[in-house]
Amino acid sequence: MRENYFQSETLLVGKGLPSAGPWTPASVAAQGASLLDEEVSLPVAVLSEAALRHNLSWMRRFTEAYGCQLAPHGKTTMSPALFQMQLDAGAWGITLATAPQTVAAYEHGVRRVLLANQLVGKGNFELIANLQAADAGFWFACVVDSADNVAALGRHFHARGQQIKVLLEIGAAGGRTGVRDDAQAHAVLDEISRWPDAVALVGVEVYEGVAKDEAGVRAVLQRSLAQWQAIHATGGFAQLPAILTGAGSAWFDVVAEELSPLAGNTDAQVVLRPGCYLTHDVGIYRQAARRIHASNPVAREMGSSLRPALRLWAYVQSLPESGKAIIALGKRDAAFDAGFPVPALHHRPGNAVPVNAPAHWQISAMMDQHAFLDVRDGDDLRVGDLLCFDISHPCLTFDKWRHLLVVDDAHRVIGAVSTQF
Amino acid sequence: MRENYFQSETLLVGKGLPSAGPWTPASVAAQGASLLDEEVSLPVAVLSEAALRHNLSWMRRFTEAYGCQLAPHGKTTMSPALFQMQLDAGAWGITLATAPQTVAAYEHGVRRVLLANQLVGKGNFELIANLQAADAGFWFACVVDSADNVAALGRHFHARGQQIKVLLEIGAAGGRTGVRDDAQAHAVLDEISRWPDAVALVGVEVYEGVAKDEAGVRAVLQRSLAQWQAIHATGGFAQLPAILTGAGSAWFDVVAEELSPLAGNTDAQVVLRPGCYLTHDVGIYRQAARRIHASNPVAREMGSSLRPALRLWAYVQSLPESGKAIIALGKRDAAFDAGFPVPALHHRPGNAVPVNAPAHWQISAMMDQHAFLDVRDGDDLRVGDLLCFDISHPCLTFDKWRHLLVVDDAHRVIGAVSTQF
Repeated sequence: MRENYFQSETLLVGKGLPSAGPWTPASVAAQGASLLDEEVSLPVAVLSEAALRHNLSWMRRFTEAYGCQLAPHGKTTMSPALFQMQLDAGAWGITLATAPQTVAAYEHGVRRVLLANQLVGKGNFELIANLQAADAGFWFACVVDSADNVAALGRHFHARGQQIKVLLEIGAAGGRTGVRDDAQAHAVLDEISRWPDAVALVGVEVYEGVAKDEAGVRAVLQRSLAQWQAIHATGGFAQLPAILTGAGSAWFDVVAEELSPLAGNTDAQVVLRPGCYLTHDVGIYRQAARRIHASNPVAREMGSSLRPALRLWAYVQSLPESGKAIIALGKRDAAFDAGFPVPALHHRPGNAVPVNAPAHWQISAMMDQHAFLDVRDGDDLRVGDLLCFDISHPCLTFDKWRHLLVVDDAHRVIGAVSTQF
Repeated sequence: MRENYFQSETLLVGKGLPSAGPWTPASVAAQGASLLDEEVSLPVAVLSEAALRHNLSWMRRFTEAYGCQLAPHGKTTMSPALFQMQLDAGAWGITLATAPQTVAAYEHGVRRVLLANQLVGKGNFELIANLQAADAGFWFACVVDSADNVAALGRHFHARGQQIKVLLEIGAAGGRTGVRDDAQAHAVLDEISRWPDAVALVGVEVYEGVAKDEAGVRAVLQRSLAQWQAIHATGGFAQLPAILTGAGSAWFDVVAEELSPLAGNTDAQVVLRPGCYLTHDVGIYRQAARRIHASNPVAREMGSSLRPALRLWAYVQSLPESGKAIIALGKRDAAFDAGFPVPALHHRPGNAVPVNAPAHWQISAMMDQHAFLDVRDGDDLRVGDLLCFDISHPCLTFDKWRHLLVVDDAHRVIGAVSTQF
C-alpha cells in the first residue's frame, strides 16, 4: 500500500495554504502547519486522514460481505490521490461522469473506468478513442439508453477501428436517464447488435438514486436484475462475466441486497458505485447512513458507521449587530444546496484546543464569499475566532477547491490532495 | 492596448477543450475549433469577445460620465486576462474579496487592489504583508468595521514594520458587514488612531447591495457620504484624496448618483466596484439593467445596454420519456442559485447554424452533472443535439471552470482565459 498519497510534488496554488509558498503536498506536509495556530490562510477545506482510512476500510468490509465489487464514483472528489487510495483499498475501478473526467483520471494512473453516463458528442468520442488508441490496457465502458446514441458510437468507433464497451442503462419512470420499458430496451439492444465490431454489450447499469422512495428503488433494481438475466439467457452479452451495476451514495445497501442473488454467479460481476462514502457528511449522507444502520444487517453487524472526513475552517469576519456573525465562508467555498455548513468547533487563537460550537449557532444564509451565522447576545465570539464546519453534499464542496489539506487529529497539516475538475 | 488577452501560453487542463491536447490559449486560438462542428468536448463555458468589449466600453463611458473611477470586483471572474482588459479599459484598480485572491491577482500583474472585506487572521495578514514587503509599488487597502480587527492589524503590521491602508466600512442595519452607527464608527476610528505608524485610514467603503430596497440603498449611501465628509472635516484621513467607494453589480447607477456630489472634489476619489457588468447575464443582472435603463439618465442616453457575454454549451444526453430531456450540464458547470440556465440556441450537428431555442424549453431541476429540461411531445430534439444556454449569476458559473473559451460570433474558438479560484 502506497503511504504517500498526500505528499506528491504537484504545485499547489490558490486559497487555503500557508503563506510564503510555493507549496506542494510534500512541502506542506514537511512544514506541518497548525490550523489552530493560524499557520494557514482561511477559509480552507481539510480532510481527516483518520476518517478517510476508516471509511475506506468500512466500505471494503461492506462490499466484501456482499460479494460485490466497488467502483467508487470519482466525480465526488475528482482527486487522483483519493482514487489511488480507493484502488489500493480493493476498488475494482473508478466510476466517472464525463469524458474529461476520464481523461484526468487516466492521466493520473486510473486504468479501469466505468462511465455512468452516455458518451455523447464527437468531441467526447474523440477523447475516449484517443485513450483507447494509445493504451490497449485501458478498460473503459459507458452506458447507453438511446438507439441514436448507439448508432453514433457505432459509426465513430467503427471509423476509428475500435470497439466501445457499453452497458444498457435501466431507468425509472419519472427519473433521470435509462430505458423505461422493454420496448426502449429492445430498440437499444437491436442497435447494438448492428455494430458487432464497434459496440460490445458488457452489462446492465442502473442509477437508483432518483427513484422516489425505497419501494421505487427496489423496483428499478429488480427490473435491472431481470434485464441482466434476460440478456444473459439469450447469450446477449459480448463477454462473461457480464456486469450488473448500481448504487449512488444513499442506497448502496439496498442495491447490495437486491443484486446479491447474482453475487455467486460466475457469469456475473456485481459492481457498486457509491462516491460520497469516502468523506461522508453530516447532512444528506448521514441521514442515509442512519437508515442503513437501522435496516441493513451487514452494516449493523459492523458496528461503526461512516465518519465525516471533510470539514471547512473559516474566520469570524464581522460582528456587526446583535444576534449575527458574518463568517468568511461563502458559496465559493462550500455546498449550499443540501443544507448549509454546520458549526462543529470554535477556536480562539492562543487557546490550546478548540471547543465544541453551541448547537444554536446556525448558518441562515450564504452569499458568494460570506455566511450569516445566527448567534445569541452574550455568546463569547470575537472577530478573528476560527470556526470549523461540517458539511452536507461533499461533491459540491470538493469542486470549490483545487486542493484540500489533509490533517491529523490535532488539526496539523500532514499533506494535501489536488482536485482535477 | 494589448490585443492578445486570450492567447497566453498557460497550460489549460480539464473540461471544455478540443481533443488531442495539451492546449494553451494560444494553441487553442490557432486551432480555431468550431463549437458547431463539435470540435470541443461539451459542456463548455464560452465568452463572447464582442460582448466583453461592448461591456467594457459601456462601463467606461458610464463611470466617466459620473466622474467616478472603476475598481471592478475581480472575485466574479478571477481571471487575470479579464483583469488586464479591465485595467487597459481604464479601471483604476481591481477589487477583491480575500487575501488569496489578492495574491493571485498580484502574481498576474495587478498592482492596485481594494479588498472589500476585512483582512482577518494571521495567515491572511502574512499573505498581504509578504506582498507589501516584496514590492513597495503594490497598493493595497482593506476595509475595517471592528476595533478588534484594527488592533490585530495594528499589532501585526507594526511588528512587520509596515503600514496597512484601511477604509472604514459602513453597513446597513439588517445587512452584512460594516458599522451600523456612529458609536461603532468611532470605536473603529479611535482604534485606528492608536496605530499611526501601522494603520492608515484612506477612505470610506460601503456595500449597498444587501439593503432591502432602493430607499435602503440610498440611505446607506447617504450615511457613507456623510461619514466621509465628517472624517474629512476633522482631518481624519491619512492622505488625500481620500476614497469613497460603493457599488455591487445591481445598484451601481444609484451609487454613482448618490456619491457624485464628491466627484468634483479634489480631496475625494469616488470608486465604483461592480463585478458582473463584464459578462452580465439574463437573470438577476438583466433585471437590474432594466431598472437602470428605466431610471438612470446617463444609461438611458447611452442607448445600448450591457450584453450577456457568458454562455454554456451542452449536449442533449437522454430523451427517456415524454416531456423530458436530460442535458449533460449540471451544478458542476453552472450557477443554479439565482435561476437555472436558460436555453438560447439549439444546434443539430451537420446543420450550418443554430436556431433559437423555443421559449417553452426550460430547465426545471439540476443535479451535479445533469439538468432536467421540460420539452413538449413533438419537439424536434435528439440525443446528441447541442444546446447553448444563457446564465444567471456569473460569479458562481465562473468558479466551476478552470478556463473559459473565448468565441467569435460564428461560435469559433479564438482563445481562452484561465481562472484562479
